[in-house]
Amino acid sequence: MKKDLEIPAIINAIKRSLSPGLKYPVGLHEPNISGNEWNYVKDCLDSTWVSSVGKYVDKFEEMIAAFTGVKCAVAVVNGTAALHICLRLAGVEPGDEVLVPALTFVATANAVSYCGAVPHFVDIEEYTLGLDPRKLEDHLQQVAVIRDGCCINRYTGRKMKAVVAMHAFGHPVDLDPLVETCRRFHLELIEDAAESLGSFYKERHTGNWGVLSALSFNGNKIVTTGGGGAILTNNPELAKKAKHLTTTAKVFHRWAYYHDQVGYNYRLPNINAALGCAQMEQLPKFLEQKRALAERYRQSFSGIRGIKFFNEPAFARSNYWLNVLLLEDDYADRRDALLEATHEAGIATRPAWEAMHRLPMFKDCPRMDLSTVENITSRLINLPSSSFL
Amino acid sequence: MKKDLEIPAIINAIKRSLSPGLKYPVGLHEPNISGNEWNYVKDCLDSTWVSSVGKYVDKFEEMIAAFTGVKCAVAVVNGTAALHICLRLAGVEPGDEVLVPALTFVATANAVSYCGAVPHFVDIEEYTLGLDPRKLEDHLQQVAVIRDGCCINRYTGRKMKAVVAMHAFGHPVDLDPLVETCRRFHLELIEDAAESLGSFYKERHTGNWGVLSALSFNGNKIVTTGGGGAILTNNPELAKKAKHLTTTAKVFHRWAYYHDQVGYNYRLPNINAALGCAQMEQLPKFLEQKRALAERYRQSFSGIRGIKFFNEPAFARSNYWLNVLLLEDDYADRRDALLEATHEAGIATRPAWEAMHRLPMFKDCPRMDLSTVENITSRLINLPSSSFL
Repeated sequence: MKKDLEIPAIINAIKRSLSPGLKYPVGLHEPNISGNEWNYVKDCLDSTWVSSVGKYVDKFEEMIAAFTGVKCAVAVVNGTAALHICLRLAGVEPGDEVLVPALTFVATANAVSYCGAVPHFVDIEEYTLGLDPRKLEDHLQQVAVIRDGCCINRYTGRKMKAVVAMHAFGHPVDLDPLVETCRRFHLELIEDAAESLGSFYKERHTGNWGVLSALSFNGNKIVTTGGGGAILTNNPELAKKAKHLTTTAKVFHRWAYYHDQVGYNYRLPNINAALGCAQMEQLPKFLEQKRALAERYRQSFSGIRGIKFFNEPAFARSNYWLNVLLLEDDYADRRDALLEATHEAGIATRPAWEAMHRLPMFKDCPRMDLSTVENITSRLINLPSSSFL
Repeated sequence: MKKDLEIPAIINAIKRSLSPGLKYPVGLHEPNISGNEWNYVKDCLDSTWVSSVGKYVDKFEEMIAAFTGVKCAVAVVNGTAALHICLRLAGVEPGDEVLVPALTFVATANAVSYCGAVPHFVDIEEYTLGLDPRKLEDHLQQVAVIRDGCCINRYTGRKMKAVVAMHAFGHPVDLDPLVETCRRFHLELIEDAAESLGSFYKERHTGNWGVLSALSFNGNKIVTTGGGGAILTNNPELAKKAKHLTTTAKVFHRWAYYHDQVGYNYRLPNINAALGCAQMEQLPKFLEQKRALAERYRQSFSGIRGIKFFNEPAFARSNYWLNVLLLEDDYADRRDALLEATHEAGIATRPAWEAMHRLPMFKDCPRMDLSTVENITSRLINLPSSSFL
């Protein structure tokens, strides 16, 4: 007879991993406001430059570029807006298809919809929790045909323009083979690095591999601006276009209001950027704290039946944005019981996002075999991961 | 021979209207941060609830509803996002047409594009600088036919779903006849009240006449949140839908991430709402100060050849968001010289926005005769209007 999951032991292991003297309930990922946030925000209010023009936006963009090693960063209102613009600038047009992992936060697929394009769902690999480059390659061998330099889905007849690699919970996708597949199939690589600020693939920061990448500074991220995001690119021309598209496509003039295309009001306000500058200063500390927490979880969970703490892939150094516990296949049916019990113990946990192809608006979208997504979503649990825990 | 425009006299009149001891250059409309802004923002930072959940968002929404007299307010990331959601909830779908004034900030027409719909440009009247309800009625008599309860453009074959009334520079559109025309032609009335917080049409606040309305709290508005906006409606069902659509259409659950449609990440962060609460407390004072400034302009300009200060319509009490100077027809050719001279004197001025049908992305959109828009844009100048001037 199968032995039951040791839920009390798991709860104890979680509590043992967290700082002693912590107040419960404990959230999943909360902001850590402990640096120059006040000073910069106060300076911003005192200057009255709280809105879209101001020195903190420029400074924040510089800090992001410096940290990630990507040449250009354009600050925007949130990660969803960043993804939308990345897709637009990668040439995604109405009626195109974009390959995205079926396991992701809904923004990845929504941004494709905003372009009038259709998400095409790709399976993940258990080793990274992100898009599986080998399975994608095999799938493209089956469904893709190159015509006039364009990648066409031979079943739907639609152009496939781009692949979005989402670094789930901060763990980098296996980028080397993915870059190769994208090259072979004439697909633009976009990174959804919303969760992976501070995560590196083979010494190079995530978001520095795609033609364009998106960051998020939502309240639940490692660095927050209240709400915010950024577009990353090493191509200064694309960065200029990103700035233009995100500032209503207004053509610069001392007084005239002329716009040369349909643009967006996606600028990050200066007051949010001020908060972001103070947060970026603390990013190295946050990363250390989060890696130490992950290490404590790893040790506390060792030897407990039926569960496995998820470790960063060997080729990666991860920010451990949201720590991941995987139930063994045999114990997947106990996932909801564990979620219930942890919440009752004042410990915020959550399952994986509902897979994209299971949401009503995406259920008819093209997709490959998604068996790993199905399997992983049934047995994944996120653990409290704030840097101050 | 025509006498030249008295540019030095105009500049003197502007300077005479502004507070003595003011530092030049003077901007067009800048934030006035002089109340509880720092207390509330500090409280927000101390609580670490800087992001999308927090008490200031709720409080800000309540303050907006109370001030405008509209039942429900949903705070969003900016006025453009508010307009986008208003249009979506009014039933605007891809391929529809939406009637919008040709004289407006580009966001009004862009938001129509975001829905996949086509703006149909309407002329304005000089009395309000907003949409001309009588000219619209005549135009609809020519081009519209009602079929199965829908208003169809008989020339394009497209459904006309809604009219957006934009209260330009804070001056209310003549709403009574417009409401009547909308009713007769089965058109939803949406108000773009981005510029008219504090402006009333016949004792009732702008934004309280349409089925849905949009406010803006951009840095150049009478009340700012850095960047922000709100959706107003008296229909609680629509407000619920607006909240849902602007928060990624996530279905509430303690831990599950399930979204029932393509939604948007349009929430206003709590830190921006904290700023907004402090600003809303000062709105009555700002309105008084701005009306006093308008009165000083009116007096200073009287008797100067070739110009007319724009007064609120008799049926309105306006917030005088941006004060307006109209050159007489004979002097329209001196507009750019006046813009140059004021800028050189350290006084920020600007002309009307480029009319929508003159922007490349909207040049082929349907439109009526736009002679008043053409005429007004050639001779309108906005004056410095910050509340502290």
